[in-house]
Amino acid sequence: MNFELNKALLILERTPSVFRSLLQDLPPGWIHENEGEHTWSPFDVIGHLIHGEKTDWMVRTAIILGNDPGKTFEPFDRFAQFENSRGKGLEALLAEFDTLRQENLRRLRSLQLSGEDLQREGMHPELGPVTLSQLLAAWVVHDLGHIAQVSRVMAKQYKSEVGPWTQYLTILNFDPEE
Amino acid sequence: MNFELNKALLILERTPSVFRSLLQDLPPGWIHENEGEHTWSPFDVIGHLIHGEKTDWMVRTAIILGNDPGKTFEPFDRFAQFENSRGKGLEALLAEFDTLRQENLRRLRSLQLSGEDLQREGMHPELGPVTLSQLLAAWVVHDLGHIAQVSRVMAKQYKSEVGPWTQYLTILNFDPEE
Repeated sequence: MNFELNKALLILERTPSVFRSLLQDLPPGWIHENEGEHTWSPFDVIGHLIHGEKTDWMVRTAIILGNDPGKTFEPFDRFAQFENSRGKGLEALLAEFDTLRQENLRRLRSLQLSGEDLQREGMHPELGPVTLSQLLAAWVVHDLGHIAQVSRVMAKQYKSEVGPWTQYLTILNFDPEE
Repeated sequence: MNFELNKALLILERTPSVFRSLLQDLPPGWIHENEGEHTWSPFDVIGHLIHGEKTDWMVRTAIILGNDPGKTFEPFDRFAQFENSRGKGLEALLAEFDTLRQENLRRLRSLQLSGEDLQREGMHPELGPVTLSQLLAAWVVHDLGHIAQVSRVMAKQYKSEVGPWTQYLTILNFDPEE
């Protein structure tokens, strides 16, 4: 598929409700366990998505469309959620993510981006020049990647409970470092 | 986590709504594309889950709890959906899956399984003896695995649209044959 803003928005706007369907009202075992050392729980992932709404996607969109000469993005803090989510409940995080995402998509739509806008470039601190269309496509893939991750983390909580089925249920054998 | 029926039910009962949140009202590009030859689209996956509701999980539960001497399961047909889903729309499949799942969980709850029941065994045609608790845990993991798969398949539709971000978005580099 080629990137089209309308089709990207169809995914971005539903991600909060996907996470709500997947995680709402679950007990701690399903939401606070991870895949082992240096991996994230579903709770950590929602905090990470919140930080992205605040500091990544629309902030970088504004840099690309703005008039700063270098147009260089700030590096994204992949660990901010460990501090920011502390003491919060999952329901509060899901609601915060939903509100921030809605507001960001309202702003994105209001920009009425042209095909030319989508080809404008910014400078990623590590990846080099990237277009707005690549940034927005990455936002979509990032959402879907974390939905897959959360499902996998939850599945792994039953790794030792499925007996001989481990060999068929390949998600249990996926190493997050790969 | 140890297997507990109540905690397993919390996942099994929400899977239809997770797929609805993820797939409802999307255009064909998001639901009919796959990851390459011999891989499944999101549409194929929902058909596969429907076939599981009809012929796998609760049918095998009944065999384990029944009085047949061998208690051997029928092999599961992993390709039935290609025939069964033909000509149907995704909305119809999502509704069918939801109805079948609700009915199956109503039956599962009505069995009022004891800890002893959960240790009863059936014979998998390839894996050998498995307990009812392993079957039900596998049902949960199977759901979560297919949620992860569908998210991954959707993400891959933008593989060539994210530019240099491919190297960070590891879901794009996952090979379904692994």
